[in-house]
Amino acid sequence: MSLQTLIPKFEFEQVLDSNPQTKTMALLGKIESKPAIITVEKTNFTFDESLEGVLPQGRKCDSEFSCINAIDKISTITENDIYHWGLCTLQQDIEKNPTAKLNLIWPATEVHIRKYTQQQFHLVEETPEVYEKYVVPYIETMVGDRIKWVRNILHEGAEADRVVYNDLDKENGFILLPDMKWDGLNLDALYLVAIVYREDIRSLRDLNPSRQQWLKDVSLKIRKAVSSSYNHQILPDELRLFIHYQPSYYHFHIHVVNITHQGLGDGIAAGKAILVEDVIEQLNYLGPKGFKNKTISYAIGENHDLWKNGLKEVQNKRLKELGLPTELPAGEFE
Amino acid sequence: MSLQTLIPKFEFEQVLDSNPQTKTMALLGKIESKPAIITVEKTNFTFDESLEGVLPQGRKCDSEFSCINAIDKISTITENDIYHWGLCTLQQDIEKNPTAKLNLIWPATEVHIRKYTQQQFHLVEETPEVYEKYVVPYIETMVGDRIKWVRNILHEGAEADRVVYNDLDKENGFILLPDMKWDGLNLDALYLVAIVYREDIRSLRDLNPSRQQWLKDVSLKIRKAVSSSYNHQILPDELRLFIHYQPSYYHFHIHVVNITHQGLGDGIAAGKAILVEDVIEQLNYLGPKGFKNKTISYAIGENHDLWKNGLKEVQNKRLKELGLPTELPAGEFE
Repeated sequence: MSLQTLIPKFEFEQVLDSNPQTKTMALLGKIESKPAIITVEKTNFTFDESLEGVLPQGRKCDSEFSCINAIDKISTITENDIYHWGLCTLQQDIEKNPTAKLNLIWPATEVHIRKYTQQQFHLVEETPEVYEKYVVPYIETMVGDRIKWVRNILHEGAEADRVVYNDLDKENGFILLPDMKWDGLNLDALYLVAIVYREDIRSLRDLNPSRQQWLKDVSLKIRKAVSSSYNHQILPDELRLFIHYQPSYYHFHIHVVNITHQGLGDGIAAGKAILVEDVIEQLNYLGPKGFKNKTISYAIGENHDLWKNGLKEVQNKRLKELGLPTELPAGEFE
Repeated sequence: MSLQTLIPKFEFEQVLDSNPQTKTMALLGKIESKPAIITVEKTNFTFDESLEGVLPQGRKCDSEFSCINAIDKISTITENDIYHWGLCTLQQDIEKNPTAKLNLIWPATEVHIRKYTQQQFHLVEETPEVYEKYVVPYIETMVGDRIKWVRNILHEGAEADRVVYNDLDKENGFILLPDMKWDGLNLDALYLVAIVYREDIRSLRDLNPSRQQWLKDVSLKIRKAVSSSYNHQILPDELRLFIHYQPSYYHFHIHVVNITHQGLGDGIAAGKAILVEDVIEQLNYLGPKGFKNKTISYAIGENHDLWKNGLKEVQNKRLKELGLPTELPAGEFE
């Protein structure tokens, strides 16, 4: 069945998520009694794409839907001196100027629903003791077959057609792939992941001063490799290299984005992303045990298994000690 | 003159910036021979606002423009198993469902044009030596009358109607205000700034272990104050507290956002934003001189005065030492 047939059958149940920054919304409902998730995202403004890559001065605004030509009706909100605010409608065309992207998952599973549902996040402090007691056992469940897909990429040629760069050196080598979030085209939004070949580093916690020079070498190699892979249209110092804690998989990898890239959501934010240069620098101070010895603060969602298996209790205990409330006041949303 | 009169007179010259994540575009042109900047931003999807705050299960999708009711034409891009991708147009209404927000600055100055123009960013390493040689003299030019507006807020009652919370303690006190980027309504996008009363901390560089307890106390007070100011609808551990380096003004202040807030662009990113908890933690290691002793890496735009007055040369020297190119290959964009 086509989207044109399915969408009109959608029976709305609830809004799973809505993001005014990215202009996206996720809805849950049913189609023919089976769960359906619709996500919608407004499109960006168009300007004549045939002129992309040309200096801005050469850009024209001559297509019917380009730049401000699409503006239809205008209403004024307010005016103050040289500043004017308003709202407008735009000329649309399903082929040439659609207003939104539309995705449908049908039938959707529980896992899909959880994935698209907004969760509550908390800022937690993971002490070395909490790491040993809760995180290490969690990591044990997340390695082995759970990251077989990583070894498939590194050793079995999986996703070989997507590989941007491959440095096979066992010690300093890594494989560079486009991240799923990147369309692979717009360099302004460049997003790659470098997965290292060595398997003895599962996360930030396994970094200590004996690995500082290694990390320096790898990050410099990544900067050079990305720049030359894209014909030096992006320079090595125009990249932001960072790692995640907690990462989504426990085999050391480095995120590489164009430094101008915005709107990556949580993935690039302080409290989740840590600049590789800052990791290298902190290894000067942290002592021989490195990041094993540190208290690390980060945001964690209530759907995360670590929250459900231990961190929630740790957090509640800590908040009580600080005299902070641990839940919303009763009755507030009933 | 009203927007309705001015916009049709706009003569397009160039696209200053375009952001596919936030669906925004900035255009430069002329109106009556004087420079004009138009910025446009797509609106988010609507759902019946009368039901906001009610549990999601209670939400209805019954207004004409709410949820998927606004969807007009649909075209399919591709289908694969349970996944369906498409595009659509939406019913519009200048009053009830406008498609974009529209701002006009006219006549615009050079400063406006620079502000809305996309700049190149670079990742720089600021060593303690670079800080002393280039940044300290720069900060000297950025204090005094340049931050008179901050003292007006703290001591003269400026913007008093916007103040959310005011703790007058000279040592541990701060004033809490909504950031300009926040609409002041949607708690999901909550964004406040806490400006401290003490004047002896100009930036991260002035933090050392003697100020660790102070910073702990202030950040805990901020978490409590924000939560109670919004009737505990947001909990203290659901806030992300961070500072900027470089900050945009040199009087110590802390950014406070809802931890779920996404899409703040560069302002929340690793390489610009530093979690307050991480600052506190690093003061355990950095020695008596604290952050004065550290090499700090951050992203800086080519329009920043620090880049133009020193950091560019420092960076070029460093990149040469690392064997990295410092400019785009000649002829690439001619």
